[in-house]
Amino acid sequence: MTVDDEPRVTITAIAREAGVSVPTVSRVLNGRSDVSPQTRERVEAILREHGYRRRAGRNRPAAGLVDLVFNDLDSPWAVEIIRGVEEVAHATGIGTVVSAIHGQAASARQWLQNLRARATDGVIFVTSDVTPPLHAELQRLDIPFAVVDPAGATVGDVPTIGATNWAGGLRATEHLLSLGHRRIGFIAGPKRLLCSRARLDGYGAALAAAGLDIDAALVQQGDFYHESGWAGADALLRLADPPTAIFASSDQMAFGAYEAVRRRGLRVPDDVSVVGFDDLPESRWASPPLTTVRQPLAEMGLLAARTVLRLALGEVLETPRVELATELVVRDSTAAPAASV
Amino acid sequence: MTVDDEPRVTITAIAREAGVSVPTVSRVLNGRSDVSPQTRERVEAILREHGYRRRAGRNRPAAGLVDLVFNDLDSPWAVEIIRGVEEVAHATGIGTVVSAIHGQAASARQWLQNLRARATDGVIFVTSDVTPPLHAELQRLDIPFAVVDPAGATVGDVPTIGATNWAGGLRATEHLLSLGHRRIGFIAGPKRLLCSRARLDGYGAALAAAGLDIDAALVQQGDFYHESGWAGADALLRLADPPTAIFASSDQMAFGAYEAVRRRGLRVPDDVSVVGFDDLPESRWASPPLTTVRQPLAEMGLLAARTVLRLALGEVLETPRVELATELVVRDSTAAPAASV
Repeated sequence: MTVDDEPRVTITAIAREAGVSVPTVSRVLNGRSDVSPQTRERVEAILREHGYRRRAGRNRPAAGLVDLVFNDLDSPWAVEIIRGVEEVAHATGIGTVVSAIHGQAASARQWLQNLRARATDGVIFVTSDVTPPLHAELQRLDIPFAVVDPAGATVGDVPTIGATNWAGGLRATEHLLSLGHRRIGFIAGPKRLLCSRARLDGYGAALAAAGLDIDAALVQQGDFYHESGWAGADALLRLADPPTAIFASSDQMAFGAYEAVRRRGLRVPDDVSVVGFDDLPESRWASPPLTTVRQPLAEMGLLAARTVLRLALGEVLETPRVELATELVVRDSTAAPAASV
Repeated sequence: MTVDDEPRVTITAIAREAGVSVPTVSRVLNGRSDVSPQTRERVEAILREHGYRRRAGRNRPAAGLVDLVFNDLDSPWAVEIIRGVEEVAHATGIGTVVSAIHGQAASARQWLQNLRARATDGVIFVTSDVTPPLHAELQRLDIPFAVVDPAGATVGDVPTIGATNWAGGLRATEHLLSLGHRRIGFIAGPKRLLCSRARLDGYGAALAAAGLDIDAALVQQGDFYHESGWAGADALLRLADPPTAIFASSDQMAFGAYEAVRRRGLRVPDDVSVVGFDDLPESRWASPPLTTVRQPLAEMGLLAARTVLRLALGEVLETPRVELATELVVRDSTAAPAASV
């Protein structure tokens, strides 16, 4: 979304050269679907040839819509992000279009096709990798976009809104250390996600600061979902020298750890302390209420909405990447280790 | 959304009489915002005078959007309904616009104003009371709508999609009776909601079929939220003759009951069985996993989306009110009563 220079040729000149009307060039520029592919191609070619840079200027008729795209709508934190985006959209007088593309290329193509049949002021992706082709297509359509909680490497200068995952991992582990725990299990998120690595590194940094090394036997691989939290905690509790505390790097995995503890006839936090990561609404409703690292999901959605709306008005961002602060929320799932352990 | 007759006058005649152009009449008919209030009033008056009935015909340009309106986006089941609506919308090639009106008249007006600034093919309200003025305005704008899980009395022939709350209350209570429970506590939802009453009545019907009366001391008033489930269960467990099982008429209240049980040093289901109502995703992740009555929330969203899209095409519904079946999902929070109780 670099908007560093002005158009060098007029739309009228482009229309003349392409042998089409000015409104047709407008339609191409606005990404409308009522232009034949041949005409679009021809106009696009001439625009490129003249180095015409479209900008989302104040004069562009606002579509009155911002798009919010999830991989799947199965995540309990989806509603938190929707809430943040909707709040900004509602206040701005526009609508929030929510979509799921199920991590499938065909579904993403269908989504893009649906998008081209109407207008949008901007797109917010949530942990969906923005692939280079999608990136290029959105730029071609002059649609600004931003990514919330990027899953991995982003393309070029894509604006991203994340959370301080490393600091959150550090604080959660420091909290357990301060309670007296020395053997702290860790259940990691998917390796392909940068945020998983950041949380693990924060855990390691806190241990190192306390003069402890990471014990590979205490680190279990999970995928952020409930079942992997159960399996990881179960494996940890079966160790000859089990941990007295478990840091599950997502709330869902922490709930799985609760169940592993319960099935072994143990109790949280009396026998095992558990810390999560996310602060989903249900972490307050868990029994016991979960100590966890809060990701400001609604605020991340809010900031993402403001970001794409600023881009839609042609503004330039001070920085394309923002990390909002995480914070530890201490509830009832953590306590000092039992004396007997 | 009665579409029982054809327009009796042409748009051209209306335009002539109103002293405006045909496109202006079209804009009024399509609820566009780029018409002055005075002109809109004049055209509307003439349309009414001639008994002109707008219909959402196949010729109406599809807006490519369906609107989904929540009171608040704080409910964990919101994402389930969004998922159902989005699935239909995505397959139809249109977008799902999600909004929250926070139960406030000012917010609802703002929402309606935003809606008028763009187009929509239909509106789905979720447990938001559709007030008569809102109802009238949507009809005036020729926007079809449906209500998911209506909160109370609906207006006229508003299409509603609900679940069989009474049957669900009956099945949950039958399940506890079949395990041997005779003293079964009940935590009710808000009195103003019909679904609360239906669940309570189902509970009473199952007890009656087993030759038991409702014991008023065993019925606690809740509001579907977590804290009221905690308070209700706590009050029940403090009775001189406490129940051996608690039927909380929402999952969130059931999670509150878990916490009340835990804080008294008791265990679910060993000491107290707990049943919920909803089958939120987190009921699977609860510890122990929650026995609950499944409301087909995604399917309700799906059917609501299909309903408004049919209405948008001018189709007539066979029946304006539909109740989808609930079903009991037995997990690990229910067991036979402890022999000692």
